[in-house]
Amino acid sequence: MGIEIERKFLVKGDGWRSLGSGTIYRQGYITTENKINTVRVRLIGEQGYLTIKGKTTGATRAEFEYPIPKEDALFMLENLCDHPLIEKTRYKIKQGELIWEVDEFMGDNQGLIIAEVELEQENQAVELPNWIGQEVTGNLQYHNSNLVKYPFKKWKDEHR
Amino acid sequence: MGIEIERKFLVKGDGWRSLGSGTIYRQGYITTENKINTVRVRLIGEQGYLTIKGKTTGATRAEFEYPIPKEDALFMLENLCDHPLIEKTRYKIKQGELIWEVDEFMGDNQGLIIAEVELEQENQAVELPNWIGQEVTGNLQYHNSNLVKYPFKKWKDEHR
Repeated sequence: MGIEIERKFLVKGDGWRSLGSGTIYRQGYITTENKINTVRVRLIGEQGYLTIKGKTTGATRAEFEYPIPKEDALFMLENLCDHPLIEKTRYKIKQGELIWEVDEFMGDNQGLIIAEVELEQENQAVELPNWIGQEVTGNLQYHNSNLVKYPFKKWKDEHR
Repeated sequence: MGIEIERKFLVKGDGWRSLGSGTIYRQGYITTENKINTVRVRLIGEQGYLTIKGKTTGATRAEFEYPIPKEDALFMLENLCDHPLIEKTRYKIKQGELIWEVDEFMGDNQGLIIAEVELEQENQAVELPNWIGQEVTGNLQYHNSNLVKYPFKKWKDEHR
Protein backbone atom coordinates (compact mmCIF):
# COMPACT_ATOMS: atom_id res chain seq x y z
CA MET A 1 0.00 0.00 0.00
CA GLY A 2 1.13 3.53 -0.64
CA ILE A 3 0.38 6.86 0.93
CA GLU A 4 0.56 9.92 -1.27
CA ILE A 5 1.42 13.18 0.49
CA GLU A 6 1.28 15.90 -2.06
CA ARG A 7 1.02 19.67 -2.26
CA LYS A 8 -0.41 21.28 -5.33
CA PHE A 9 0.04 24.79 -6.71
CA LEU A 10 -0.86 26.92 -9.68
CA VAL A 11 2.06 27.95 -11.86
CA LYS A 12 2.89 31.50 -12.86
CA GLY A 13 5.05 32.57 -15.78
CA ASP A 14 7.27 30.42 -17.96
CA GLY A 15 10.35 30.25 -15.74
CA TRP A 16 9.87 26.49 -15.29
CA ARG A 17 9.83 25.60 -18.99
CA SER A 18 13.57 25.38 -19.52
CA LEU A 19 14.10 23.28 -16.37
CA GLY A 20 12.80 19.89 -17.50
CA SER A 21 11.52 17.92 -20.46
CA GLY A 22 7.94 16.84 -20.94
CA THR A 23 6.20 13.50 -21.43
CA ILE A 24 2.63 13.09 -22.65
CA TYR A 25 0.18 11.52 -20.19
CA ARG A 26 -3.22 10.28 -21.27
CA GLN A 27 -5.60 9.28 -18.51
CA GLY A 28 -9.20 8.66 -17.63
CA TYR A 29 -11.38 7.63 -14.72
CA ILE A 30 -13.50 4.53 -14.44
CA THR A 31 -15.48 6.12 -11.67
CA THR A 32 -16.05 9.78 -11.01
CA GLU A 33 -19.56 9.50 -9.57
CA ASN A 34 -18.26 8.39 -6.25
CA LYS A 35 -16.20 11.42 -5.33
CA ILE A 36 -14.28 9.77 -2.50
CA ASN A 37 -12.37 7.02 -4.29
CA THR A 38 -11.02 7.35 -7.79
CA VAL A 39 -9.97 4.61 -10.18
CA ARG A 40 -7.61 5.97 -12.79
CA VAL A 41 -6.29 4.45 -16.01
CA ARG A 42 -3.14 6.11 -17.33
CA LEU A 43 -0.98 5.62 -20.37
CA ILE A 44 2.56 7.01 -20.38
CA GLY A 45 4.24 6.09 -23.66
CA GLU A 46 3.95 2.29 -23.95
CA GLN A 47 3.16 1.62 -20.30
CA GLY A 48 -0.31 1.47 -18.77
CA TYR A 49 -1.10 2.00 -15.09
CA LEU A 50 -4.15 1.36 -12.96
CA THR A 51 -4.35 3.53 -9.85
CA ILE A 52 -6.77 3.47 -6.95
CA LYS A 53 -6.89 6.51 -4.70
CA GLY A 54 -8.81 6.84 -1.47
CA LYS A 55 -10.19 9.80 0.41
CA THR A 56 -7.99 12.89 0.71
CA THR A 57 -7.26 13.99 4.28
CA GLY A 58 -5.25 17.22 4.35
CA ALA A 59 -2.47 16.61 1.82
CA THR A 60 -2.53 12.83 2.33
CA ARG A 61 -4.23 10.16 0.28
CA ALA A 62 -3.96 6.37 0.13
CA GLU A 63 -2.77 5.35 -3.31
CA PHE A 64 -2.25 2.00 -4.99
CA GLU A 65 -0.71 1.88 -8.43
CA TYR A 66 -0.19 -1.18 -10.63
CA PRO A 67 1.43 -1.42 -14.07
CA ILE A 68 -0.90 -2.94 -16.66
CA PRO A 69 -0.45 -3.84 -20.35
CA LYS A 70 -0.74 -0.97 -22.82
CA GLU A 71 -3.57 -2.81 -24.62
CA ASP A 72 -5.61 -3.05 -21.42
CA ALA A 73 -5.10 0.66 -20.73
CA LEU A 74 -6.10 1.58 -24.29
CA PHE A 75 -9.29 -0.48 -24.13
CA MET A 76 -10.28 0.92 -20.74
CA LEU A 77 -9.50 4.51 -21.76
CA GLU A 78 -11.62 4.14 -24.88
CA ASN A 79 -14.51 2.06 -23.53
CA LEU A 80 -14.74 2.24 -19.74
CA CYS A 81 -13.56 5.73 -18.81
CA ASP A 82 -15.63 8.88 -18.80
CA HIS A 83 -14.86 11.16 -21.72
CA PRO A 84 -13.26 13.51 -22.54
CA LEU A 85 -10.00 11.98 -21.35
CA ILE A 86 -7.40 14.08 -19.60
CA GLU A 87 -4.35 14.77 -21.73
CA LYS A 88 -1.41 16.68 -20.41
CA THR A 89 2.33 17.08 -20.73
CA ARG A 90 4.14 16.38 -17.50
CA TYR A 91 7.49 18.05 -16.85
CA LYS A 92 9.66 16.71 -14.04
CA ILE A 93 11.79 19.44 -12.52
CA LYS A 94 14.34 18.85 -9.76
CA GLN A 95 14.75 21.75 -7.35
CA GLY A 96 17.04 21.02 -4.42
CA GLU A 97 15.94 17.70 -2.92
CA LEU A 98 12.45 17.82 -4.37
CA ILE A 99 11.02 16.78 -7.72
CA TRP A 100 8.29 19.07 -9.00
CA GLU A 101 5.81 17.72 -11.50
CA VAL A 102 4.39 20.45 -13.69
CA ASP A 103 1.29 19.41 -15.64
CA GLU A 104 0.36 21.46 -18.68
CA PHE A 105 -3.13 20.42 -19.72
CA MET A 106 -4.46 20.12 -23.27
CA GLY A 107 -7.92 19.97 -24.79
CA ASP A 108 -10.76 21.28 -22.66
CA ASN A 109 -8.30 22.06 -19.88
CA GLN A 110 -5.87 24.03 -22.00
CA GLY A 111 -4.57 27.05 -20.11
CA LEU A 112 -4.39 25.18 -16.83
CA ILE A 113 -0.90 24.46 -15.48
CA ILE A 114 -0.51 22.79 -12.10
CA ALA A 115 2.65 21.96 -10.14
CA GLU A 116 2.71 19.12 -7.64
CA VAL A 117 5.37 18.06 -5.21
CA GLU A 118 5.37 14.77 -3.35
CA LEU A 119 6.52 14.88 0.27
CA GLU A 120 7.65 12.45 2.94
CA GLN A 121 5.58 14.12 5.64
CA GLU A 122 2.69 16.57 5.67
CA ASN A 123 4.63 19.20 7.64
CA GLN A 124 7.81 18.96 5.57
CA ALA A 125 9.36 22.34 4.71
CA VAL A 126 9.11 23.14 1.00
CA GLU A 127 11.14 25.85 -0.71
CA LEU A 128 8.87 27.31 -3.37
CA PRO A 129 10.46 28.16 -6.73
CA ASN A 130 9.57 31.64 -8.02
CA TRP A 131 7.28 30.20 -10.71
CA ILE A 132 4.99 28.70 -8.05
CA GLY A 133 1.72 30.56 -7.53
CA GLN A 134 -1.34 30.04 -5.34
CA GLU A 135 -1.56 26.78 -3.39
CA VAL A 136 -4.56 24.61 -4.31
CA THR A 137 -3.83 21.52 -2.17
CA GLY A 138 -7.12 19.90 -1.17
CA ASN A 139 -9.14 21.94 -3.67
CA LEU A 140 -11.26 19.28 -5.36
CA GLN A 141 -11.79 21.46 -8.41
CA TYR A 142 -8.17 20.82 -9.37
CA HIS A 143 -8.35 17.04 -8.99
CA ASN A 144 -7.76 15.58 -12.43
CA SER A 145 -10.81 13.37 -11.94
CA ASN A 146 -12.96 16.50 -11.63
CA LEU A 147 -11.40 18.10 -14.70
CA VAL A 148 -13.24 15.51 -16.83
CA LYS A 149 -16.71 16.80 -15.95
CA TYR A 150 -15.78 20.37 -15.11
CA PRO A 151 -12.90 21.21 -17.41
CA PHE A 152 -10.98 24.45 -17.03
CA LYS A 153 -12.63 26.09 -20.03
CA LYS A 154 -16.02 25.91 -18.27
CA TRP A 155 -14.90 27.54 -15.06
CA LYS A 156 -16.31 30.95 -14.35
CA ASP A 157 -13.97 33.90 -14.40
CA GLU A 158 -14.17 34.32 -10.62
CA HIS A 159 -12.63 30.91 -10.12
CA ARG A 160 -9.58 31.68 -12.22
CA MET B 1 -7.82 -7.56 -22.12
CA GLY B 2 -10.30 -10.28 -21.32
CA ILE B 3 -13.85 -10.97 -22.29
CA GLU B 4 -16.00 -12.82 -19.79
CA ILE B 5 -18.85 -14.85 -21.26
CA GLU B 6 -20.77 -16.32 -18.41
CA ARG B 7 -24.15 -17.85 -17.70
CA LYS B 8 -25.55 -17.73 -14.23
CA PHE B 9 -28.17 -19.92 -12.55
CA LEU B 10 -29.83 -20.47 -9.23
CA VAL B 11 -29.02 -23.78 -7.56
CA LYS B 12 -31.57 -26.30 -6.32
CA GLY B 13 -30.97 -29.03 -3.79
CA ASP B 14 -27.67 -30.27 -2.39
CA GLY B 15 -26.65 -32.62 -5.20
CA TRP B 16 -23.64 -30.40 -6.00
CA ARG B 17 -22.12 -30.42 -2.52
CA SER B 18 -20.21 -33.68 -2.79
CA LEU B 19 -18.77 -32.78 -6.21
CA GLY B 20 -16.13 -30.21 -5.27
CA SER B 21 -14.35 -28.54 -2.37
CA GLY B 22 -14.86 -24.96 -1.30
CA THR B 23 -12.59 -21.93 -0.89
CA ILE B 24 -13.53 -18.77 0.97
CA TYR B 25 -13.72 -15.58 -1.11
CA ARG B 26 -13.88 -12.14 0.46
CA GLN B 27 -14.59 -9.26 -1.87
CA GLY B 28 -15.79 -5.71 -2.06
CA TYR B 29 -16.42 -2.95 -4.58
CA ILE B 30 -14.67 0.38 -4.82
CA THR B 31 -17.50 1.71 -6.91
CA THR B 32 -21.09 0.62 -6.96
CA GLU B 33 -22.66 4.01 -7.71
CA ASN B 34 -21.78 3.76 -11.35
CA LYS B 35 -23.77 0.69 -12.28
CA ILE B 36 -22.04 0.11 -15.62
CA ASN B 37 -18.44 -0.52 -14.59
CA THR B 38 -17.42 -2.27 -11.42
CA VAL B 39 -14.08 -2.23 -9.65
CA ARG B 40 -13.72 -5.26 -7.42
CA VAL B 41 -11.16 -6.11 -4.76
CA ARG B 42 -10.98 -9.79 -3.90
CA LEU B 43 -9.00 -11.85 -1.45
CA ILE B 44 -8.67 -15.60 -1.97
CA GLY B 45 -6.48 -17.04 0.75
CA GLU B 46 -3.21 -15.08 0.62
CA GLN B 47 -3.71 -13.62 -2.86
CA GLY B 48 -5.39 -10.33 -3.66
CA TYR B 49 -6.94 -9.41 -7.00
CA LEU B 50 -8.15 -6.18 -8.53
CA THR B 51 -10.76 -6.62 -11.24
CA ILE B 52 -12.34 -4.10 -13.58
CA LYS B 53 -15.53 -5.13 -15.37
CA GLY B 54 -17.31 -3.18 -18.08
CA LYS B 55 -20.88 -3.11 -19.25
CA THR B 56 -22.71 -6.42 -19.61
CA THR B 57 -24.09 -7.14 -23.09
CA GLY B 58 -26.06 -10.38 -23.15
CA ALA B 59 -23.83 -12.87 -21.33
CA THR B 60 -20.63 -11.00 -22.29
CA ARG B 61 -18.60 -8.53 -20.27
CA ALA B 62 -15.11 -7.03 -20.68
CA GLU B 63 -13.00 -8.03 -17.71
CA PHE B 64 -9.49 -7.15 -16.59
CA GLU B 65 -8.02 -8.88 -13.57
CA TYR B 66 -4.66 -8.19 -11.92
CA PRO B 67 -3.06 -9.93 -8.93
CA ILE B 68 -2.19 -7.49 -6.14
CA PRO B 69 -0.47 -7.93 -2.76
CA LYS B 70 -2.62 -9.30 0.05
CA GLU B 71 -1.85 -6.20 2.17
CA ASP B 72 -3.18 -3.90 -0.57
CA ALA B 73 -6.34 -5.97 -0.88
CA LEU B 74 -6.88 -5.97 2.89
CA PHE B 75 -6.48 -2.19 3.12
CA MET B 76 -8.82 -1.57 0.22
CA LEU B 77 -11.44 -4.03 1.50
CA GLU B 78 -11.38 -2.38 4.91
CA ASN B 79 -11.09 1.28 3.92
CA LEU B 80 -12.12 1.88 0.31
CA CYS B 81 -14.86 -0.67 -0.39
CA ASP B 82 -18.52 -0.32 0.39
CA HIS B 83 -19.61 -2.41 3.37
CA PRO B 84 -20.79 -4.98 4.13
CA LEU B 85 -18.29 -7.00 2.12
CA ILE B 86 -19.36 -10.04 0.16
CA GLU B 87 -18.22 -13.30 1.70
CA LYS B 88 -18.90 -16.61 0.05
CA THR B 89 -17.56 -20.10 -0.33
CA ARG B 90 -16.81 -20.97 -3.94
CA TYR B 91 -16.96 -24.59 -5.03
CA LYS B 92 -15.41 -25.55 -8.38
CA ILE B 93 -17.19 -28.47 -9.94
CA LYS B 94 -16.12 -30.11 -13.21
CA GLN B 95 -18.98 -31.50 -15.29
CA GLY B 96 -17.93 -32.80 -18.69
CA GLU B 97 -15.79 -30.13 -20.33
CA LEU B 98 -17.11 -27.29 -18.20
CA ILE B 99 -16.14 -25.96 -14.79
CA TRP B 100 -19.09 -24.79 -12.72
CA GLU B 101 -18.47 -22.31 -9.94
CA VAL B 102 -21.04 -22.60 -7.18
CA ASP B 103 -21.08 -19.64 -4.79
CA GLU B 104 -22.67 -20.14 -1.40
CA PHE B 105 -23.06 -16.74 0.20
CA MET B 106 -22.64 -15.86 3.88
CA GLY B 107 -23.71 -12.94 6.04
CA ASP B 108 -26.52 -10.77 4.69
CA ASN B 109 -26.70 -12.96 1.59
CA GLN B 110 -26.97 -16.26 3.42
CA GLY B 111 -29.42 -18.58 1.69
CA LEU B 112 -28.37 -17.46 -1.78
CA ILE B 113 -26.51 -20.04 -3.88
CA ILE B 114 -25.55 -19.19 -7.45
CA ALA B 115 -23.85 -21.33 -10.09
CA GLU B 116 -21.82 -19.75 -12.89
CA VAL B 117 -20.26 -21.30 -15.92
CA GLU B 118 -17.74 -19.54 -18.15
CA LEU B 119 -18.08 -20.14 -21.88
CA GLU B 120 -15.99 -19.68 -24.99
CA GLN B 121 -18.90 -18.30 -27.00
CA GLU B 122 -22.33 -16.92 -26.14
CA ASN B 123 -24.19 -19.59 -28.12
CA GLN B 124 -22.16 -22.52 -26.78
CA ALA B 125 -24.28 -25.54 -25.84
CA VAL B 126 -24.33 -26.17 -22.09
CA GLU B 127 -25.49 -29.40 -20.49
CA LEU B 128 -27.21 -28.42 -17.27
CA PRO B 129 -26.59 -30.63 -14.22
CA ASN B 130 -29.77 -31.63 -12.36
CA TRP B 131 -28.96 -29.28 -9.45
CA ILE B 132 -29.17 -26.24 -11.76
CA GLY B 133 -32.33 -24.17 -11.38
CA GLN B 134 -33.65 -20.96 -12.94
CA GLU B 135 -31.28 -19.02 -15.20
CA VAL B 136 -30.49 -15.49 -13.97
CA THR B 137 -27.89 -14.43 -16.57
CA GLY B 138 -28.09 -10.66 -17.07
CA ASN B 139 -30.24 -10.15 -13.99
CA LEU B 140 -28.48 -7.27 -12.25
CA GLN B 141 -30.01 -8.19 -8.91
CA TYR B 142 -27.68 -11.20 -8.78
CA HIS B 143 -24.52 -9.24 -9.59
CA ASN B 144 -22.30 -9.51 -6.55
CA SER B 145 -21.76 -5.75 -6.69
CA ASN B 146 -25.50 -5.26 -6.15
CA LEU B 147 -25.60 -7.77 -3.30
CA VAL B 148 -23.70 -5.22 -1.18
CA LYS B 149 -26.51 -2.66 -1.17
CA TYR B 150 -29.41 -5.02 -1.73
CA PRO B 151 -28.44 -8.22 0.03
CA PHE B 152 -30.54 -11.34 -0.34
CA LYS B 153 -32.08 -11.04 3.13
CA LYS B 154 -33.74 -7.75 2.08
CA TRP B 155 -35.33 -9.11 -1.06
CA LYS B 156 -39.08 -9.33 -1.06
CA ASP B 157 -40.66 -12.74 -1.14
CA GLU B 158 -41.90 -12.27 -4.69
CA HIS B 159 -38.32 -12.05 -5.96
CA ARG B 160 -37.30 -15.32 -4.41
